[in-house]
Amino acid sequence: MQDLDENTVTDAVLAQMATTPDARMREIMAAAVRHLHAFAREVNLTPAEWITGIKFLTEVGKACTPIRQEFILLSDVLGLSACVNALHDKTALEHGTQSSLLGPFFRQDAPEYALGQSIVQAPHGAEIVMYGQVTDAAGKPLAGATVDVWQTDEQGAYDLQLGNGETADMRGRFRCDDAGKYHFRTVRPLGYSIPLDGPVGDLVRRQRRHGHRPAHIHFLIGAPGHRELVTALYLADDEHVDSDTVFGVSRSLVVSPRANDPNAPVPGLPAIRYDFSLGRAADNDTGRVGADPAQIVAAAD
Amino acid sequence: MQDLDENTVTDAVLAQMATTPDARMREIMAAAVRHLHAFAREVNLTPAEWITGIKFLTEVGKACTPIRQEFILLSDVLGLSACVNALHDKTALEHGTQSSLLGPFFRQDAPEYALGQSIVQAPHGAEIVMYGQVTDAAGKPLAGATVDVWQTDEQGAYDLQLGNGETADMRGRFRCDDAGKYHFRTVRPLGYSIPLDGPVGDLVRRQRRHGHRPAHIHFLIGAPGHRELVTALYLADDEHVDSDTVFGVSRSLVVSPRANDPNAPVPGLPAIRYDFSLGRAADNDTGRVGADPAQIVAAAD
Repeated sequence: MQDLDENTVTDAVLAQMATTPDARMREIMAAAVRHLHAFAREVNLTPAEWITGIKFLTEVGKACTPIRQEFILLSDVLGLSACVNALHDKTALEHGTQSSLLGPFFRQDAPEYALGQSIVQAPHGAEIVMYGQVTDAAGKPLAGATVDVWQTDEQGAYDLQLGNGETADMRGRFRCDDAGKYHFRTVRPLGYSIPLDGPVGDLVRRQRRHGHRPAHIHFLIGAPGHRELVTALYLADDEHVDSDTVFGVSRSLVVSPRANDPNAPVPGLPAIRYDFSLGRAADNDTGRVGADPAQIVAAAD
Repeated sequence: MQDLDENTVTDAVLAQMATTPDARMREIMAAAVRHLHAFAREVNLTPAEWITGIKFLTEVGKACTPIRQEFILLSDVLGLSACVNALHDKTALEHGTQSSLLGPFFRQDAPEYALGQSIVQAPHGAEIVMYGQVTDAAGKPLAGATVDVWQTDEQGAYDLQLGNGETADMRGRFRCDDAGKYHFRTVRPLGYSIPLDGPVGDLVRRQRRHGHRPAHIHFLIGAPGHRELVTALYLADDEHVDSDTVFGVSRSLVVSPRANDPNAPVPGLPAIRYDFSLGRAADNDTGRVGADPAQIVAAAD
């Protein structure tokens, strides 16, 4: 019989989990237990602090609803989502444009638009134009690639947060031309705060973090035979571009509208040019980071 | 601007959390993030596996009710509770009897009995007697120490799991005599399965673990000026004494009833003798591992 102390208990747990038939589950749970125990030992976690942690996780679970996934938000503000995203990028056989977080506001059923149309139904500010080309990792144009775009309006709100949330706005799906080129009109998005009215918001406030995401435009780009690209472009002049609360910004994804771009497909509008490239997926690629919160909570109910 | 990859994202999160005013919270959250990211990198966590984890934690949160704390159960089966318990034991200024898990079935309002009485209202099997002495770490008797006892019946059920759960049975509070001695009558408890009808039960089953706890008797022992002792005694002949699902067993806490103990205070009954010793608490001692689930869930609602 073992005499378990704060060190030997770890091996005892691993031994008891060694019967797990699924090898990958066994590997993941063993690593989780080792890191969990190492964390407790490193900070010398007290019973009162442990209870605080149990309460916090319980609150996060209670805050999950079909339209809100507080555990994903927790993963986001702890940088775990960005870490998993980066690990996923490394699995690509060829590397294209860097990815970024999908976020909770993607919709499968965005309206389809012709190239050049605006994704904003009633712009309240000056429009901008976005254009560029979608290629493979070697630079070969991907004719007919699909470009899903979604963003906040000039006030920092997604359509899902406005009115009854049933009107699709500030989002759309485009199909590139035979040269892989796309362009569309939109407005400058505004940055916004993550939801701060739940337990994750309490945590972020207690850490004196501002809770903001810099202004950005989301993209989901697909072409047959290529790795789906989930990414976003961030506006360089946003004050939070260097301190995104969910760690989605990479230098290669930061852009600025240019006032007098001679190549802009809509003359007179400030223009952002961005060319996307799509890598090739490994056979065992397991998809994007992010999901419909409704699906996850439905599965839990 | 940083270009975040799966390694540099960790420092970016720590930098953003560095503004946390509470030094201990800052330390704990920094260690949690480092270990969480290290875990993801070590197993190369995929987006699909990450979603599985989010779903699981959401299910655990949804399973928490005022009478059930599924996150504590998760902590128990992962050995975290035992690890925190062991860390807590090390903080004592003097070491007494080893501690064990409080578990979810402690009640503040146990009936008070005179020494020698039985804690079982209607024994269905043969009785046993328990006796011994409560001393300080140096062996000095602690006159008037309080001894709280609770256990399952011969079928493996606590009173809280029987009938309407309002009748206190198989539990009681005793006060030691002037020599620190106690004795009481009871029945042999039976081991039992942890609750397997929730997400933690699903996990344990997928790991092909039996889910049982060996038969045991809980003790909570207190004396003014001494460290409260939360422990349990385990029956040596239980088939699961070496494989407790929640890792509460230590060799020093394993006992066997003895058939013809000449010192037994109730002649003719099988007797268990166990002497408890209480250490001294450090000034910053933060209490026991375990809590009333109702309090935790109430706090989360």
